[in-house]
Amino acid sequence: MRAEIITIGDELLIGQVVDTNSAWMAERLNEIGIELYQITSVHDQREHIIAALDEAFSRADIVLTTGGLGPTNDDITKHVLCEYFDTHLIEDQRVRAHIMELYRERPDVLNRLTATQWLVPQSAEILENRVGSAPLMVFHHGAQILASMPGVPYEMKIAMEEQILPYLETSISRDHETSAIIHRTLQVTGIPESSLAILLENYEASMPAGLHLAYLPKDGIIRLRLSSYGELAQEEMDRWFEELKTLVADYLIADTDEPLEVILGNLLKAKGQTIATAESCTGGKLASLLNKHAGSSAFYWGSVISYDNSVKEHLLGVPSELIKAHGVVSEEVVRVMAESVRKSLNTNYGIATSGIAGPSGGSVEKPVGTVWIAWATPEGTTAECFHLGKLREQITNRACIKAIVGMIQKVKG
Amino acid sequence: MRAEIITIGDELLIGQVVDTNSAWMAERLNEIGIELYQITSVHDQREHIIAALDEAFSRADIVLTTGGLGPTNDDITKHVLCEYFDTHLIEDQRVRAHIMELYRERPDVLNRLTATQWLVPQSAEILENRVGSAPLMVFHHGAQILASMPGVPYEMKIAMEEQILPYLETSISRDHETSAIIHRTLQVTGIPESSLAILLENYEASMPAGLHLAYLPKDGIIRLRLSSYGELAQEEMDRWFEELKTLVADYLIADTDEPLEVILGNLLKAKGQTIATAESCTGGKLASLLNKHAGSSAFYWGSVISYDNSVKEHLLGVPSELIKAHGVVSEEVVRVMAESVRKSLNTNYGIATSGIAGPSGGSVEKPVGTVWIAWATPEGTTAECFHLGKLREQITNRACIKAIVGMIQKVKG
Repeated sequence: MRAEIITIGDELLIGQVVDTNSAWMAERLNEIGIELYQITSVHDQREHIIAALDEAFSRADIVLTTGGLGPTNDDITKHVLCEYFDTHLIEDQRVRAHIMELYRERPDVLNRLTATQWLVPQSAEILENRVGSAPLMVFHHGAQILASMPGVPYEMKIAMEEQILPYLETSISRDHETSAIIHRTLQVTGIPESSLAILLENYEASMPAGLHLAYLPKDGIIRLRLSSYGELAQEEMDRWFEELKTLVADYLIADTDEPLEVILGNLLKAKGQTIATAESCTGGKLASLLNKHAGSSAFYWGSVISYDNSVKEHLLGVPSELIKAHGVVSEEVVRVMAESVRKSLNTNYGIATSGIAGPSGGSVEKPVGTVWIAWATPEGTTAECFHLGKLREQITNRACIKAIVGMIQKVKG
Repeated sequence: MRAEIITIGDELLIGQVVDTNSAWMAERLNEIGIELYQITSVHDQREHIIAALDEAFSRADIVLTTGGLGPTNDDITKHVLCEYFDTHLIEDQRVRAHIMELYRERPDVLNRLTATQWLVPQSAEILENRVGSAPLMVFHHGAQILASMPGVPYEMKIAMEEQILPYLETSISRDHETSAIIHRTLQVTGIPESSLAILLENYEASMPAGLHLAYLPKDGIIRLRLSSYGELAQEEMDRWFEELKTLVADYLIADTDEPLEVILGNLLKAKGQTIATAESCTGGKLASLLNKHAGSSAFYWGSVISYDNSVKEHLLGVPSELIKAHGVVSEEVVRVMAESVRKSLNTNYGIATSGIAGPSGGSVEKPVGTVWIAWATPEGTTAECFHLGKLREQITNRACIKAIVGMIQKVKG
């Protein structure tokens, strides 16, 4: 089974909004055995949407559209779909009752524009949008299916999880034999991409048809992904994955595609241990990674973000003489930061970062991109200096990855 | 002039990577008067790439491709482009010298796979990729242009800024009259989208052809964007924008599309004032927003992230009796947090957040989504309770927006 996504909205094509929906949808589709063939982003414009629908239906069994379902004039998806499927709008009493209930405590929203949201295409199946006013619409196009949902990420996710995916699963199992799409990913570090490819040359050459290996380098980590689109049995896939794992053992950080902060969190939770951070150049990014996922309060205690030197002295007890003697971006300072936050927050581990994220503040001795990281553990403190590139965002992202990778290695012991 | 982007890579279509490149590229293209018509994401697969090229060239003057230029076997873009433009690979000594220099201090990278990176299509113009080994390639297709660049965001951005955009600007000014694409955006809050649309009904009805108004709601903010694709003169656009601004004055937060944290930062810098945060439920997200942009050390001092109650007591001096009496998610606690961080970090302003981000931890009285925010200022402290939805990420994002919007209003006075 093959699907395509059409994302509808001028905001995507002038760069005002990043399309985060498609990646999330792709993962969910793969999980139920549907391959995503193409993503197409088009304007809120009748001819453009119709052309994209024609093209997608020429290639795919399932077409998913997002966006263009708001009550304002710039949103035209519902009207274009009516035209495309040769139907017209009718009032839907169930949708009306749902919207009335949704805005019960906000009567100011129940105006005549909101009322256009309970007009739905007569030939469409309407699924419930629990958290919003735009109806979820499913159209049948011969044996093909189109599902239209809102572009707001939260609404799209709930729509997919509660309605569209179960709907597709039911339709698929009724009409087709689907074969499993399997992706397995390893994460490695400490080897250049090209050297890794040479290391894996014989392995790649001996892979059977239908097995694919991909290299995804980012922020100092290479994700190695094995994929099979229904051609390989699970056991055969497992064997190839294990062999790959053995070949890259020296560089392996993780044998899943889970974010590294989740891997660290799970390690800490399993041991009943806790962590805190003291951040200068990463400025809270490391903290927000560590508590991004539900359940993080079990292992993450807190952080001190010491952007200004006075905060390093005051809250982290870094002696001002130490800063004067070595500079804030130094092994000496970052060690004290890590030990101090570990002690004052009473955790098992403390991580500290101090670096020059740029664009200004660099020197010949310590150019932009220089980052010191320290890990304070019950066994003692270690620190390391890295050079992480030239761009602010790149430097801080990579520093977080280095900090987490170092901590994973230390917690594993 | 019309452009299209083709992003090439299986990782985009299985959801392993979010395409952040296209939005950034779209903005840059618009700035030099090039409209982005469509974004298409395709697999690392010969037939798929060729079909996408054919389609894009049937609609656009300029085709930009990203991705598929690494030295490993899964990357095939360069070979497919050779086939498409009926040319072959030759060794390029300039690219070779550049790569030698790039990896001077990392000889382990200079292996035979890396050496394939200095093979380039004979008929292509090669532009310098200052930060990576993949050559930037420009092909001519009659009067049409194709530019191919790496998919790694940092490399793509530098390639676009230093090479591709100047190249396109030169080609365009030589061959065409381009008319300005103008986008102007206002940010409003405190009014439902549909009510805003009713408020602007007469305004929209009286807009001239060629002027477009779009509504972009996100995280409690609605961005209102006026666009003209070369049809309106700048002065006329300005008049319409000013009228829009007057109509929404009661809800206006900003009359630019700048991120709210940048607007706050600029206000603080202009006044020579400083800020610190004490975060519970937002867990460092607010801190990392405030110091995300270069120059933030001028106004942002630091933060205490108190995920665990002991940190609230210990580093922020919140009395444990207060927590016992009112709970951590309460007006009383959040006020003390804001005042304490303002005082101990010695800043003009302090913001504190405490809430239930879920999925667990909610109660009938304080359901998931309940967030208290306090703003401590030289004039005193105010606090407000919000209900920000049901999903963890939504709640913490919206809490950051509420915190920043509240602070902007207070700094403005």
